Amino acid sequence: MTLDQLQTQFEAFKTKKLALDMSRGKPSAAQLDLSNELLDIVTSKDYLSSQGAETRNYGGLDGLPETKELFKNFLEVSSVEEVVVGGNASLTIMHDIISRGITHGMCDSELAWGKQTIKFICPVPGYDRHFSICQHFGIEMIPVACNENGPDMDQVEQLVANDASIKGIWIVPKYSNPTGLSCSDEVVDRLSSMKTAANDFRIFWDNAYAVHHLSEDKDVLKNILTSCKAAGNDNRPFILCSTSKITFAGAGVSAVGGSVANMDWYRGHLFFSTIGPDKLNQVRHNRFFKNIEGLHKHMEKHAALLKPRFEKTLSILETELGGTGLATWTKPNGGYFISLDVPNGCAKRVVALAGEAGVKLTGAGATYPDKKDPNDSNIRLAPSCPTVNEIEQAMQIVCLATKIAAVEVDIVKDSVLS
Amino acid sequence: MTLDQLQTQFEAFKTKKLALDMSRGKPSAAQLDLSNELLDIVTSKDYLSSQGAETRNYGGLDGLPETKELFKNFLEVSSVEEVVVGGNASLTIMHDIISRGITHGMCDSELAWGKQTIKFICPVPGYDRHFSICQHFGIEMIPVACNENGPDMDQVEQLVANDASIKGIWIVPKYSNPTGLSCSDEVVDRLSSMKTAANDFRIFWDNAYAVHHLSEDKDVLKNILTSCKAAGNDNRPFILCSTSKITFAGAGVSAVGGSVANMDWYRGHLFFSTIGPDKLNQVRHNRFFKNIEGLHKHMEKHAALLKPRFEKTLSILETELGGTGLATWTKPNGGYFISLDVPNGCAKRVVALAGEAGVKLTGAGATYPDKKDPNDSNIRLAPSCPTVNEIEQAMQIVCLATKIAAVEVDIVKDSVLS
Repeated sequence: MTLDQLQTQFEAFKTKKLALDMSRGKPSAAQLDLSNELLDIVTSKDYLSSQGAETRNYGGLDGLPETKELFKNFLEVSSVEEVVVGGNASLTIMHDIISRGITHGMCDSELAWGKQTIKFICPVPGYDRHFSICQHFGIEMIPVACNENGPDMDQVEQLVANDASIKGIWIVPKYSNPTGLSCSDEVVDRLSSMKTAANDFRIFWDNAYAVHHLSEDKDVLKNILTSCKAAGNDNRPFILCSTSKITFAGAGVSAVGGSVANMDWYRGHLFFSTIGPDKLNQVRHNRFFKNIEGLHKHMEKHAALLKPRFEKTLSILETELGGTGLATWTKPNGGYFISLDVPNGCAKRVVALAGEAGVKLTGAGATYPDKKDPNDSNIRLAPSCPTVNEIEQAMQIVCLATKIAAVEVDIVKDSVLS
Repeated sequence: MTLDQLQTQFEAFKTKKLALDMSRGKPSAAQLDLSNELLDIVTSKDYLSSQGAETRNYGGLDGLPETKELFKNFLEVSSVEEVVVGGNASLTIMHDIISRGITHGMCDSELAWGKQTIKFICPVPGYDRHFSICQHFGIEMIPVACNENGPDMDQVEQLVANDASIKGIWIVPKYSNPTGLSCSDEVVDRLSSMKTAANDFRIFWDNAYAVHHLSEDKDVLKNILTSCKAAGNDNRPFILCSTSKITFAGAGVSAVGGSVANMDWYRGHLFFSTIGPDKLNQVRHNRFFKNIEGLHKHMEKHAALLKPRFEKTLSILETELGGTGLATWTKPNGGYFISLDVPNGCAKRVVALAGEAGVKLTGAGATYPDKKDPNDSNIRLAPSCPTVNEIEQAMQIVCLATKIAAVEVDIVKDSVLS
């Protein structure tokens, strides 16, 4: 097919004046409906905690006992002392912990992070909001390639062993944003046991997709806190999660887990900023899930909605780009994203072309620190929100745009494309 | 009455093994009941905003338009751009603004506050949580006496004019914690127009009791933002409020108001820490109040519960200590507290004695920076939670304890006391 022919196809799509969005890792309306019972489950007749505690008044700095118990099981930590329940977003907890690191340091810091030059390792491609936090606090970001098992550990180990200013690493361990892939047991063990020049090194273990499987084919990871403890690095991980993509995004419950020393440090800090998070919303969530098994059961309903969307995305990629050598993509068992790599120098062009044809994609580069993808090749696809039919159209446009961009930069001769 | 006789009375109280609490500015259960409709007002059948917006998904960094409109009227600012709706607590917003000041500085700071020695003026007696934030961030506190019209402005003006390291002042402008008294128009004007050596001086205008009148006898204050603008100091005030003592403490909605420059600065910062606050809870509050008139109407129900409690507290003080010269106390038109001054050197003893007889009071000194009342004379009384009968008993014990403590330190001859 010639460039002319590709462009004719493309113009045909443009005349449809589509408005499709594969840019955001948002639950669809159908997914939100799965949790509507949350809105009816606490009433004026019935608002006490399961233990009879008043939920309408002050108190409960780190969560209701029953909510801590639920998140203990979610975070897979060993006691409720290793849990702090937060507000509606784990992003807020992550920002908060780093902000307090900047002003005060961690529980084992000799000096507040703000009083020194500090660096974080940023596996790439990764989550833009993690990188934004670093940028905001002037934390230097060191990109390290993320492969199918997690970050390149040879590189990570060498970096942290030799530079005491490296204080942290961002990890989305399961169904990572944007690759959808998970850390192998070896990576978990190496992260847990590696020698760090900094005494106060932290892993920000953002387990945002901990229970977000697409099918029975589930990724199972080694327990990061157990591994860190076994290596004598008890205070290394902060484990983050929320129900934003389980119940309601923005009206869910978040939590952080880690060693008692880390959690006591955080509770000590929280005293200055809050009397406690919204307990009524905690009760709603406890009643809705009943227990961790109930939460897992609930996730199967999400999977039923997400799986066909992922399958459609992958099938169009395979049909349109399979065998062309123009692109590679991940095939996740869970999460919210598929990571697509187009020829170097083409990602921005593909996103722009798709936009012209009415398909909104995450900005090219967003998955890299400072929004700069050095290869300009990575594109994050978010199939959760559009319908399967919309995905079919959107992905055909994305694939066509990939072919056009590749021909434009002479990656392939147009005649090669069928 | 001799000390022996006072002690006999006191021992009689002790045998009752009371457990009364006048320590915390908490709404009573009856007050919480006033807002129970909140728990039924958003259901799975009816959860969209008044403009039909999805409230279960991400978005809305600074609040739903209808919630911003409500708080625009609550905060008495002139546009919704002058409002940011927050999470469940204004304490969190105050801590957050100061934390961001420490790491980044205000919108008009030349240098982050954390990179310099900074000081705040703390009117005393005041709110312990304000002082704790300062202490936490190593902000030096300069106590200034608070009289019946607000802080001693001669002193405040002199301090801020000559010391560029003074970056802020805490003010609870209406029905202050703990005095229950309000700033006069003159104090508002002087705070607004005073020359400050610091370009980035801020008033933390914690209007926690803005609508918390006890009767038709309402304190009406000059508008701080209007006054500051008139004086060319648009960015001076951050105006804080929440519904913690209007609906549910811990499950309410907070907000901050101020100049567009201040709010844009705050929105810019919030981007890094949140996708937005809980919109479902915003909808609950909008529906419950309908509008600002509805909110004021709702507060009359609180007043009906609080007024007899304040009256009982004041009447026992008058009956037991009136004319003795042993104590002075405030007679607020609103808020949650009465401030009691006992003879110098007696506050700790009174609190301890009350505790022995089963009456829990706020710790003596709590109303001063570092919890140190230089005169050891101020005690904060919080009448909201106990019943009127409980208040009667508790206040008789407090008054008796005051007499005993005064006799013990030879302030009065015991024979003077009747």
